[in-house]
Amino acid sequence: MLPKGFVASGIHCGIAKKRNKKDIAIFFSLYPAVASGMFTSNLVKAAPVLLSQKYLRNGKNFRGIVANSGCANACTGRKGMDDAETVCEASAKLLKVESGEILAASTGVIGQFLPLARAQSGLKKLAVQVLKGRSSETAAVEAIMTTDTFPKVARREALIDKRRITIWGCAKGAGMIHPSMKPFHATMLSFIMTDASITPFALDKALNNAVEKSFNCVSVDGDTSTNDTVLALANGAALNRQISDKDKNLAVFEGALTGVCLELAKMVAADGEGATKFIEIEVKNADTEKTAKRIAETVATSPLVKTAVFGNDANWGRIMAAAGRSGAKINPDRIDVFFGKLMVARRGTAVKFSERKALRILKDKKVRITVDLHQGKKSAKYYTCDFSFDYVKENASYRS
Amino acid sequence: MLPKGFVASGIHCGIAKKRNKKDIAIFFSLYPAVASGMFTSNLVKAAPVLLSQKYLRNGKNFRGIVANSGCANACTGRKGMDDAETVCEASAKLLKVESGEILAASTGVIGQFLPLARAQSGLKKLAVQVLKGRSSETAAVEAIMTTDTFPKVARREALIDKRRITIWGCAKGAGMIHPSMKPFHATMLSFIMTDASITPFALDKALNNAVEKSFNCVSVDGDTSTNDTVLALANGAALNRQISDKDKNLAVFEGALTGVCLELAKMVAADGEGATKFIEIEVKNADTEKTAKRIAETVATSPLVKTAVFGNDANWGRIMAAAGRSGAKINPDRIDVFFGKLMVARRGTAVKFSERKALRILKDKKVRITVDLHQGKKSAKYYTCDFSFDYVKENASYRS
Repeated sequence: MLPKGFVASGIHCGIAKKRNKKDIAIFFSLYPAVASGMFTSNLVKAAPVLLSQKYLRNGKNFRGIVANSGCANACTGRKGMDDAETVCEASAKLLKVESGEILAASTGVIGQFLPLARAQSGLKKLAVQVLKGRSSETAAVEAIMTTDTFPKVARREALIDKRRITIWGCAKGAGMIHPSMKPFHATMLSFIMTDASITPFALDKALNNAVEKSFNCVSVDGDTSTNDTVLALANGAALNRQISDKDKNLAVFEGALTGVCLELAKMVAADGEGATKFIEIEVKNADTEKTAKRIAETVATSPLVKTAVFGNDANWGRIMAAAGRSGAKINPDRIDVFFGKLMVARRGTAVKFSERKALRILKDKKVRITVDLHQGKKSAKYYTCDFSFDYVKENASYRS
Repeated sequence: MLPKGFVASGIHCGIAKKRNKKDIAIFFSLYPAVASGMFTSNLVKAAPVLLSQKYLRNGKNFRGIVANSGCANACTGRKGMDDAETVCEASAKLLKVESGEILAASTGVIGQFLPLARAQSGLKKLAVQVLKGRSSETAAVEAIMTTDTFPKVARREALIDKRRITIWGCAKGAGMIHPSMKPFHATMLSFIMTDASITPFALDKALNNAVEKSFNCVSVDGDTSTNDTVLALANGAALNRQISDKDKNLAVFEGALTGVCLELAKMVAADGEGATKFIEIEVKNADTEKTAKRIAETVATSPLVKTAVFGNDANWGRIMAAAGRSGAKINPDRIDVFFGKLMVARRGTAVKFSERKALRILKDKKVRITVDLHQGKKSAKYYTCDFSFDYVKENASYRS
């Protein structure tokens, strides 16, 4: 269930080619909300990304998000910007709120224009449902899915001065996933609704930190999208004392928010296109967190590591090679490598290990790889999936 | 045929698991030669890389190269170094030259030890052939192949002061291919023999420039190997006036050498693991060559671009997205994208194009992608291959 004061729904309007695939969603707050956004750092930014950034820069109060799948509205020039604006303004009008209070996000094929008439007739039906309070979060989340195989939803509750607040989030992922999101400036989409009362600055800060530890540590294929967007809306309906950036309660809120984001991020990795396994890479005992993250990211994006895990092959040499080319300063002669708890390399060289045990660990749906640098005390984790035949299949004909 | 004064051969000795697969080769100069090497920039360096670097640092005259497939001798610690040294010294002794005059290179699985007894008995037979002058360049090149589907050889001749010199080169590639080689400090292997007379410094300079424009512009999977090695031997048998670094003839030599390296580099890209197509990416009209190369490299390593080409899908949005995340400063609104001569995006947005024509271009064995930045006057090319089912298949079980 959504937090207090939120309504969401989704329907099929014909933007997506697949018949009956829900393709447009509205997430709506019954009360004015503060909002925060994180967007792709790709210099090629989709029209809805540029438009939401503009609205967030200029606005104070926000009421919702209109999102579609089936069309990224990226590389569409001036017409794409006009189309995104038309969708937002039509939504605002239908929902009886001010222009600029509805934020936008899109996912789908790059370089195609939004079928505007279909979007607008879809929005009319959807707005009626939303205004009548007919909420279906499942329908809303299904409408933003592309090659996702399951809807991704997470939820946390926390106590702020004895008042229960709820944070609800959803995400879609699957392909072109390597978010590198910057505040105000991440086609992974995630929308977060909370009934907490919080200042815009505190929400920005909490979202920035939460995204850095979650979505920004996920890769499916190393391709950072033109459309990655995380939007958070906080409407204050829980009636807690407002959380500010100097408030101890911010840590409580941020903890819960990070929980939601991390759960969603792991689902995005596990549901990567063609994935048969979830892979968690931890780099331990680095001199800096940056070094640890850089190595973890390089291992997570190595096609050779990912195909080896798909094939249940304990090919740890590929992990060493990825660490070595990461650009991080490492001492190869100190590195230990583990699959699960099984040590496969010690001090940079081969150790005898049970291939039977390795096979059992690698056949699991969740594979943990640990790289111990023995250089310092910092660590970082990165989340990804294996690289299968189906990844190639899905991506050889995505556009058609 | 090899240049004057060189003999080479290869046999099966049992390092590779596959029966009768040739796995050890000797490239030998009948006269003392000067040598130059370029090696992987991966911090995890195989034992033969470290050993060849040491020999090149300390030595002046060189007589040959001993190379094996089936075992990378990487991540093998102190024992790996001892093994590499044993192989080099045994070769030197059998070939009746000084210790340190035979350089080494290996390719194969990381983290396994060389089967030393097999290598040594193989070397004995091989040395007898070589000393009798029984040269088989085909056998030598076959012995360094791993998942390569064809042997890669290139050859150029040039006139230096009316004397004909010959440059011959061979290479193996296929997987873990994203060379990033530095002088003295890339599992692509390439060995170059020339009968030119040239100073060591001039050879270093020419090799450095040639590799930068060829092997360092090739990627199969983005994974820079622990073993990448290019070694050049120049024995002076052509009796030309010695080429020095201040000599006008150096440009002639470097031109021919670059020709050999580029032809080999393109073969390595075309024969990438599972490749069905060769892809050439040209980034034009950039403000700097570095910008152009960075974008070309990012497009060349994008799994989404490579799977789209495999699927004959003119998904130019993925090319725009790759350019945008490359880290290079670009103006998306100025970018034109072409498949072959067919414009598919203009000024960063969709243009109508014939899908039939696009399909014809993409179905070719050689696909040219051009990205025109309209920012300046510099350009760069990068060479890669498509990403197919067979890439996944080969790499899911490479070790086993």
